[in-house]
Amino acid sequence: MSLLVVGSIALDSVATPFGETADDPGGSVLFFAAAAALLHPVKVVGVVGRDFPLGVLRRLEERGVDFSGVETADGESFRWKARYSYDLISRETLDTRLGVFAGFQPKLPAAFRSADYVFLGNIDPELQLGVLDQVREPKLVACDTMNYWIQSKRDVLLELLRHIDYLIINDSEARELSGDWNIYRAARWVLTHGPRGVVIKQGEYGALLMDAERLFKVPAYPLEEVFDPTGAGDAFAGGFMGHLARTGDLSSDNLRRAMVYGAAMGSFAVEEFGIRRFDGVTGGEVDARVRAFRDLVHFDHGLEDGP
Amino acid sequence: MSLLVVGSIALDSVATPFGETADDPGGSVLFFAAAAALLHPVKVVGVVGRDFPLGVLRRLEERGVDFSGVETADGESFRWKARYSYDLISRETLDTRLGVFAGFQPKLPAAFRSADYVFLGNIDPELQLGVLDQVREPKLVACDTMNYWIQSKRDVLLELLRHIDYLIINDSEARELSGDWNIYRAARWVLTHGPRGVVIKQGEYGALLMDAERLFKVPAYPLEEVFDPTGAGDAFAGGFMGHLARTGDLSSDNLRRAMVYGAAMGSFAVEEFGIRRFDGVTGGEVDARVRAFRDLVHFDHGLEDGP
Repeated sequence: MSLLVVGSIALDSVATPFGETADDPGGSVLFFAAAAALLHPVKVVGVVGRDFPLGVLRRLEERGVDFSGVETADGESFRWKARYSYDLISRETLDTRLGVFAGFQPKLPAAFRSADYVFLGNIDPELQLGVLDQVREPKLVACDTMNYWIQSKRDVLLELLRHIDYLIINDSEARELSGDWNIYRAARWVLTHGPRGVVIKQGEYGALLMDAERLFKVPAYPLEEVFDPTGAGDAFAGGFMGHLARTGDLSSDNLRRAMVYGAAMGSFAVEEFGIRRFDGVTGGEVDARVRAFRDLVHFDHGLEDGP
Repeated sequence: MSLLVVGSIALDSVATPFGETADDPGGSVLFFAAAAALLHPVKVVGVVGRDFPLGVLRRLEERGVDFSGVETADGESFRWKARYSYDLISRETLDTRLGVFAGFQPKLPAAFRSADYVFLGNIDPELQLGVLDQVREPKLVACDTMNYWIQSKRDVLLELLRHIDYLIINDSEARELSGDWNIYRAARWVLTHGPRGVVIKQGEYGALLMDAERLFKVPAYPLEEVFDPTGAGDAFAGGFMGHLARTGDLSSDNLRRAMVYGAAMGSFAVEEFGIRRFDGVTGGEVDARVRAFRDLVHFDHGLEDGP
């Protein structure tokens, strides 16, 4: 099952209490791809400027990421600069320079149009709709967005929701989109607007998956050291979609498993700056973390079986 | 296995976005006892003023709560008044009148001194130590505290930690006590100061149990309507201790089960004002909620068995 991601490729400059980076390759696409590629090959559509350090992309290519849908445009790459609070819970964006990303019009190579699993990273919902016009018969489309689009392009976003299967957003986005502060009611609101399922990410508290029948919660992996929360949500989406694409199984049980792979990838993302932690992760480490999640949450209720 | 709780009995006046109460029976002891009594008989030590409405205590007595350790003193009962924010996440204490609670000196009736399971609700750690002097050979002692004591009686609290088995606190208390904002490091700090285990409650995000060997997380039960968060933590403690006392089983698996009973009781507590929700809860409802927790978090990782 082929897996496609469309979104931003950026150079991030991030300061946390543990250090800082300058022009470090990131963006939704690279975090997604670095995580998903641990599970399944990934095709990428995006744009970079002529200044983008291509070595990072080459290393990801060796791990199964296909960058043939990435255009190199005249101009500077998208740059984002931010500083995190001492507890890593809040962050301040210091600078955003769109560069070549301002004119991004996703164009799928012919070979990408038959993608089975599609993740639309956080970009203008009009562009997200434009990507859907180019894919033929995807088995599953998931999508991210952000408060900026919820406020400025709400109608387009609501149209997009009618064409996707899973919305993957964080809790503040879910609250703003639905106008409801209760996260379960907010999730239910999403289900009445198109998607068959919604994933709500809650940072250090984990994530939940709601569909019409069931609700599943996975905690965040317990880390005593977190270096940089940037990209954790996109890495989560990469784990979620990567697992679905490699198994081709959309059963309720397998969606739960995909959530755990998502949470595992999110936990790797925050253990180092940028995407570099994924360079060193082995399949065995991924499996070990998934097993650790089971030990973290499983219990035997000791009651007789029955409803 | 006999179960004892010592702590405050109060008349709460609470305003939430959904209504308000005036002089509603509460305090750590009543929330603990109302929850625990669904699982196991409870012995209570506390103090009330002559103005306390005894009907509430009679109803709890019918459900297995022994109030023979509750003294009725001349003066007014402990009163607490607070208002919650629209999202129920923060609250402002508007008034605290200690009344007869100011002179509270817990005295255990002779029949209470052989208690096996002891919960020390949030009171002055000197009084908590005084209770321990009066119990003979408890099998397990758990204890709550609050930021006020962490700041004003830190040395006494550290002494107390050396004499208890489980500390049950919320995340902000764990952070303040340990001086560490990372909740896992904060939990580990507690383990190095005496207790064999620590339970950290995280409100709408659930709770975790850490001991030297394992970490367990239980989410909060997903409620689309929360009326009043008051007492959820004490109800959690009641479920946790009630399950341990009725089973007498301190195995790791049973401690996890106790966490789930705790989370179930916390979820009942917030569904109505004060302790009144517990009046209507049946054993079948408790079991159903425990089963619901399993469906909420369990997954089959699909990997081959092994470490």
